[in-house]
Amino acid sequence: MEFVRNAWYVAGWSSEIDEELRRFTILGEHIVMYRTSDGSVAALEDRCPHRLLPLSRGKRIGDDIQCGYHGMTFDCSGKCVRIPGQSNLPASAYVEAFPVHERYDIVWIWMGDRDKADPDEIFDMPEFDDPAWAVHQGDALHLQSNYLNVAENLVDPAHVSFVHPTTLGNASSENVPVHVSTEGKAIVAWRWIRDSEPIGFFKTFGRFTENVDRWHYYYLHTPCTAVIDFGCAPAKDNIAEEDRNDGNRIFALHFITPVTESYSIDRWMHIRNTAIDDETASESMDAMFRIAFQEDKDVLEAIQREEDRPSKRRPIRIAIDKGPMVYRKRINEMIERERTQDLASSPTPAFVYHD
Amino acid sequence: MEFVRNAWYVAGWSSEIDEELRRFTILGEHIVMYRTSDGSVAALEDRCPHRLLPLSRGKRIGDDIQCGYHGMTFDCSGKCVRIPGQSNLPASAYVEAFPVHERYDIVWIWMGDRDKADPDEIFDMPEFDDPAWAVHQGDALHLQSNYLNVAENLVDPAHVSFVHPTTLGNASSENVPVHVSTEGKAIVAWRWIRDSEPIGFFKTFGRFTENVDRWHYYYLHTPCTAVIDFGCAPAKDNIAEEDRNDGNRIFALHFITPVTESYSIDRWMHIRNTAIDDETASESMDAMFRIAFQEDKDVLEAIQREEDRPSKRRPIRIAIDKGPMVYRKRINEMIERERTQDLASSPTPAFVYHD
Amino acid sequence: MEFVRNAWYVAGWSSEIDEELRRFTILGEHIVMYRTSDGSVAALEDRCPHRLLPLSRGKRIGDDIQCGYHGMTFDCSGKCVRIPGQSNLPASAYVEAFPVHERYDIVWIWMGDRDKADPDEIFDMPEFDDPAWAVHQGDALHLQSNYLNVAENLVDPAHVSFVHPTTLGNASSENVPVHVSTEGKAIVAWRWIRDSEPIGFFKTFGRFTENVDRWHYYYLHTPCTAVIDFGCAPAKDNIAEEDRNDGNRIFALHFITPVTESYSIDRWMHIRNTAIDDETASESMDAMFRIAFQEDKDVLEAIQREEDRPSKRRPIRIAIDKGPMVYRKRINEMIERERTQDLASSPTPAFVYHD
Repeated sequence: MEFVRNAWYVAGWSSEIDEELRRFTILGEHIVMYRTSDGSVAALEDRCPHRLLPLSRGKRIGDDIQCGYHGMTFDCSGKCVRIPGQSNLPASAYVEAFPVHERYDIVWIWMGDRDKADPDEIFDMPEFDDPAWAVHQGDALHLQSNYLNVAENLVDPAHVSFVHPTTLGNASSENVPVHVSTEGKAIVAWRWIRDSEPIGFFKTFGRFTENVDRWHYYYLHTPCTAVIDFGCAPAKDNIAEEDRNDGNRIFALHFITPVTESYSIDRWMHIRNTAIDDETASESMDAMFRIAFQEDKDVLEAIQREEDRPSKRRPIRIAIDKGPMVYRKRINEMIERERTQDLASSPTPAFVYHD
Repeated sequence: MEFVRNAWYVAGWSSEIDEELRRFTILGEHIVMYRTSDGSVAALEDRCPHRLLPLSRGKRIGDDIQCGYHGMTFDCSGKCVRIPGQSNLPASAYVEAFPVHERYDIVWIWMGDRDKADPDEIFDMPEFDDPAWAVHQGDALHLQSNYLNVAENLVDPAHVSFVHPTTLGNASSENVPVHVSTEGKAIVAWRWIRDSEPIGFFKTFGRFTENVDRWHYYYLHTPCTAVIDFGCAPAKDNIAEEDRNDGNRIFALHFITPVTESYSIDRWMHIRNTAIDDETASESMDAMFRIAFQEDKDVLEAIQREEDRPSKRRPIRIAIDKGPMVYRKRINEMIERERTQDLASSPTPAFVYHD
Repeated sequence: MEFVRNAWYVAGWSSEIDEELRRFTILGEHIVMYRTSDGSVAALEDRCPHRLLPLSRGKRIGDDIQCGYHGMTFDCSGKCVRIPGQSNLPASAYVEAFPVHERYDIVWIWMGDRDKADPDEIFDMPEFDDPAWAVHQGDALHLQSNYLNVAENLVDPAHVSFVHPTTLGNASSENVPVHVSTEGKAIVAWRWIRDSEPIGFFKTFGRFTENVDRWHYYYLHTPCTAVIDFGCAPAKDNIAEEDRNDGNRIFALHFITPVTESYSIDRWMHIRNTAIDDETASESMDAMFRIAFQEDKDVLEAIQREEDRPSKRRPIRIAIDKGPMVYRKRINEMIERERTQDLASSPTPAFVYHD
């Protein structure tokens, strides 16, 4: 399986990375990460080019890493600065270094061509820095599942009624159609469930007792970031789609890291416009999210096990799959584009056409 | 590895299947089984055709199953009766349904062409319904072993002396030749050990102390049912082969379910003409069978591990292998016949010969 | 992966083999070993040629083994001496027998052509029988590692500074160059670290406090035996290379058994010229060796895991790798020579050239 490489992926929360040499696995590659003396994050291929010992098993010598087998030492750009027993340092004695950037207490890593790594392309939301909103970092959900299935689940409002009947959905939404559109790099699937009983989540946090208008907007930013804008307002107010800030509004953010083809980490957090300084609200919301995400995990891991088995038929697609289908199409196009660029930038063209 | 498909396999004891959605694996396929409101057993492919979630993780809506991911709903014939979010139900939205039949408190399932599923072909023995015989359901032995090796073990009287020296065999039978013949769909291997010490089993249950004539008749019905007719009578009576009912006679029945290529379940029971109403005798016999079957399991699992390893030589066959060899030949012919029929029924012949 | 077959490998310490049927795995092959009534060791292919049950699950009948499934019986030369149920014993009814020889309380096994098995080629050292030296059998280190990496580690003085900083090495040796030469079947890598602080090992056992001259001679005998001659003498004595017996001298011996491609056993022992009758010294040395060998094991198993992963680049080799490179080259040549001999001894040449 191929991954989109020219993209900023979440390597971890900033708090996960300190001065220790720690191994992370991203897109199937082992990477050692640590903070150098100036506090910045270094990310190197976690495998000495000599005898392949993981550098994370070595030790830090200042901001460099000394391999634990024969002492070959690499600086945080991946360059070899010492080979015990010899004075020359050949150019092939290096480890790959990955561009890294911190934003929103998150460490982002670029897994593709270094030249294309532009921090301005890192996912952004103005609410992160807006005092009218509370930002709360949740947790990391580990899933034995391919990241595409995890991401599709996040642009799929229809599953909520069946997978999360006690928390995020209920039967009143089962037959409400889903709209899908695209906004730049994002695919948006959304629906309003007007004038229905509030779901469990808002019974607890909004103290709604009468019927509400409820919305779910699922924004999926390729390749791996999802923002679920959901909330509700009293049905009697009949608010317009663009006035969602007038209701109880929550952005649930999901940053998916493809660890391997069949293992993903979903780091999740939320931003909300109510109970701004109420830390107990954050904890209660976390608890409720944990229930819901465990339900997703159970489903996605069961699906992974089935996908790993032989099949006589191709899966079918139904009306509610429009968001996931657009998503998968875009991912395939991104991978194809990267593959094509690689060929084009090849120094010796395999075929040259003369008119 | 291919399986014989046009055959009735044991899916489970009737008591294993109730109103809950339960997953069974047969011939490598996952099947969800449950009892509908009329008490009959439904057996469906345990994988939603949409996103492949096992239907056994969904929930029952009356006699239908609703998938736990997006609510697609299937009736017990496998037909899709609801797709939330859309009104049309395309023909491709189905799951495979398997013919099922209950007989003798056993659920039988047909894994091949539906048209060929004839309940009259289910294994039958008149003693099941004869009050002169006690029928006792034993247990299910799970083996990390290919079903062919399990079946061959059941048409192989010769192993008894070496594998079950304390229960079913003893040294006096080591060199007694084995006869092999066929009776319709059954392969029969048998031998009489005349005028020898009774084996442990009959010392306990027949209270024999003097020498006995002992018989073992191994009937193996392709593909997966074995009946071991064994018993003894006082040597001084010198009974004829056809008068075995005059002795202490036990039919040990084995219904083998190939779960995967390397995993089998052997559900075993027995029918006997002595101690008819003595439930303690059943329990004692179970206990003794458990010892013997554990001995078989140890041998068969060790063999499976060896068969999974590379080998420089082909295994050899010896005189006592006649029963197993006929069995394997018949299985191969059955598989070949199914494969050939498939080609013959192909709508567009790949090759037509004109004279 | 291919192994060198025409070589004496260590099957086990003599104390590991008794009258019980025990399974050993060497070069990926299962072998049953036991002592016959005259005390000698028999080594047979551990798989009955009939239904493949391991013979180690059978039972001894005198010096023969009777298979636990159908009673086929083999003598300790591998010849079948009984097939229950038939009188003829076909030539194909045999198991392979392996030449075995005991020396130095070690059982050596020959895995190649029987005709080439010459006990005189078993590893030998005069110090084994010299009363001026104490011989002490250590332990068996099991490693989830290919044997080549284990062996290379034993002709690699350079790793000591980095892997064993508290026991066998320290920083003073990091940049001292390594000499490599060959002596017959052995590859020798050595270096002297003159006039430096004693390593932890000799601080404890030699009670050295002032600076010492320290040597490491790593002799690697293809395919699988390593002798590490290491020791030290007071720096003020400035002893010559050939006078190492004047210092505290230890031979650490390693006999590596390739169990499978990715699993090895390193049976280790030592011979020393000090504290000859001091058993507590042996135990203390074992304890220190255990720490060091666990450090090696950690490194080698981490490397194995990396080697099992895909790689975009080939590993690099550096100046200190000369010993390992010569070793690997010789192993490849030995394997190639065995392969070529096989072709030459083929009865029907595939190609004959006529001038």
